Amino acid sequence: MTLFLIGLGLADENDITLKGLRAVQSCDKVYLESYTSILLVGDFKKRMEALYGKEVILAHRETVELEADDILLNAHNGNVAFLVVGDPLSATTHSDLILRARTFQAPGSDVETPVDVKIIHNASITTALGSSGLAGYNFGQTISVPFWTDDWRPDSWLERIGENSQFGLHTLCLSDIKVREQSIEDMSRMGAEPEANRRGEMIVAGTLGELLSYTEPTAEQLAQDEKDDEDFEEENPTASEKELDQRREVRATQRAIEFWGEPLHTLIVVGSRLHPMEVAYGRSLARPDSRWTQVAEEVYKCMA
Amino acid sequence: MTLFLIGLGLADENDITLKGLRAVQSCDKVYLESYTSILLVGDFKKRMEALYGKEVILAHRETVELEADDILLNAHNGNVAFLVVGDPLSATTHSDLILRARTFQAPGSDVETPVDVKIIHNASITTALGSSGLAGYNFGQTISVPFWTDDWRPDSWLERIGENSQFGLHTLCLSDIKVREQSIEDMSRMGAEPEANRRGEMIVAGTLGELLSYTEPTAEQLAQDEKDDEDFEEENPTASEKELDQRREVRATQRAIEFWGEPLHTLIVVGSRLHPMEVAYGRSLARPDSRWTQVAEEVYKCMA
Repeated sequence: MTLFLIGLGLADENDITLKGLRAVQSCDKVYLESYTSILLVGDFKKRMEALYGKEVILAHRETVELEADDILLNAHNGNVAFLVVGDPLSATTHSDLILRARTFQAPGSDVETPVDVKIIHNASITTALGSSGLAGYNFGQTISVPFWTDDWRPDSWLERIGENSQFGLHTLCLSDIKVREQSIEDMSRMGAEPEANRRGEMIVAGTLGELLSYTEPTAEQLAQDEKDDEDFEEENPTASEKELDQRREVRATQRAIEFWGEPLHTLIVVGSRLHPMEVAYGRSLARPDSRWTQVAEEVYKCMA
Repeated sequence: MTLFLIGLGLADENDITLKGLRAVQSCDKVYLESYTSILLVGDFKKRMEALYGKEVILAHRETVELEADDILLNAHNGNVAFLVVGDPLSATTHSDLILRARTFQAPGSDVETPVDVKIIHNASITTALGSSGLAGYNFGQTISVPFWTDDWRPDSWLERIGENSQFGLHTLCLSDIKVREQSIEDMSRMGAEPEANRRGEMIVAGTLGELLSYTEPTAEQLAQDEKDDEDFEEENPTASEKELDQRREVRATQRAIEFWGEPLHTLIVVGSRLHPMEVAYGRSLARPDSRWTQVAEEVYKCMA
């Protein structure tokens, strides 16, 4: 039988292709890869199940890495769908699962009975970046920016931006996402409400945090915030420092969302090979107070 | 009303997304952009019309460039679908049409009444290249290799392969396609048969012609070909040199198809940052007599 790797596209359950939907409907088991990207709607699991008429099993990183043999055994015995947000072989590749399928041995058997694999492609961030108005041909290598921890601070992605810049190419910078397994379960079970759980975690990867300075409060806002905190402390004289920290975090997150919009976010570093058509298109998307055109003209010497 | 730019994906009419199909079904006019890429099935126009329940209008380069205002006027008055093989903003961008939509003025009017534009993304060659087993992250800029003519031989794409190679990156080389307008009409009207029309034209772009040397006949084949030609001349003593040339061309095309498979074709120049996983995956796709693994080990020093 067949293991289908099916791209879901980017926004919601209706971005699946007709071919993909028919494949899902032929399957005995339907897994959704839930650790490298997510759809942009909150109750996606329920929506997908309604569309497919099938149960959707959330597959976490551990499931796929540890239980690959179970997934393949299911695909040996019947059709299995492995759904991936975006394209199954683009921003994230699942080559490992495919290679294992090709040399699959059923338990107790000592001969290989390869599992047939079919790929059903879909839009990925690497295609959808065209919506920025920047031309695909002017992009160099795509990079993935990981979260830094105290003792793991990889910076090879910086070098790669440099390589692209040297030839005037744009860089698509994908943010690592960091979704608590529990929180993604909640999101898919309970609908859009618990999205707040992931907001703080996913708004632009940690190493790009300086961009968040755009969302720093103005002096006025700051004064208002301080006054609010004082009022809160007066009303709640036993409030702990932790509670006050939480209030500040909620405010910061709220300001970030007001500025950046809901996640997922993608950063593009614009190269010097910028074309006037790209400037014109970008201008039509820019925020009213954006310096896009000015920077294009003065820094990039590119007139729209 | 709305101008929908809808990606069709890569293979056949069933690669459209549910969202795309619903958009098409809401439209009064449905155009298919027919000059930058084609679906891989012969009778695609008939198949699409059967699926959509609507007439599909083939839009040639001239239509889109000269009649953009008509397309936009239709979209001003009702919903219009502009279908693009692959993704509408990826390998080919239709930014120009979108920018014109944003400043549209109806005939006789002197105020702008922007036409609402919605993009529905889909898989493009830039996502599907994952099927090669090469990792998307290891690709540099994509290049487009044009056909050379006697007096137009651009070679800037060579420089760009060089830029990618300098950093060990792979290069996706897209071939210009050169489809006679008449021949694409025929193809879509009459089904798969007249595909022979486009074979010679589309098998790897002209400037990459040296790759076709792989399809040169062996000494044995050559002797057989010469004998066939002599027999033909004996049976047809009035055969012109042109007829003999045509026989040779048909043979060359046939050999190319036997080696390369049906078009469209894509060339990937593999960079030195090749990863063992990429070698392993590529090996499972390689032709039996391929030197893929040997070259990976000896030239790239990359062991699978």
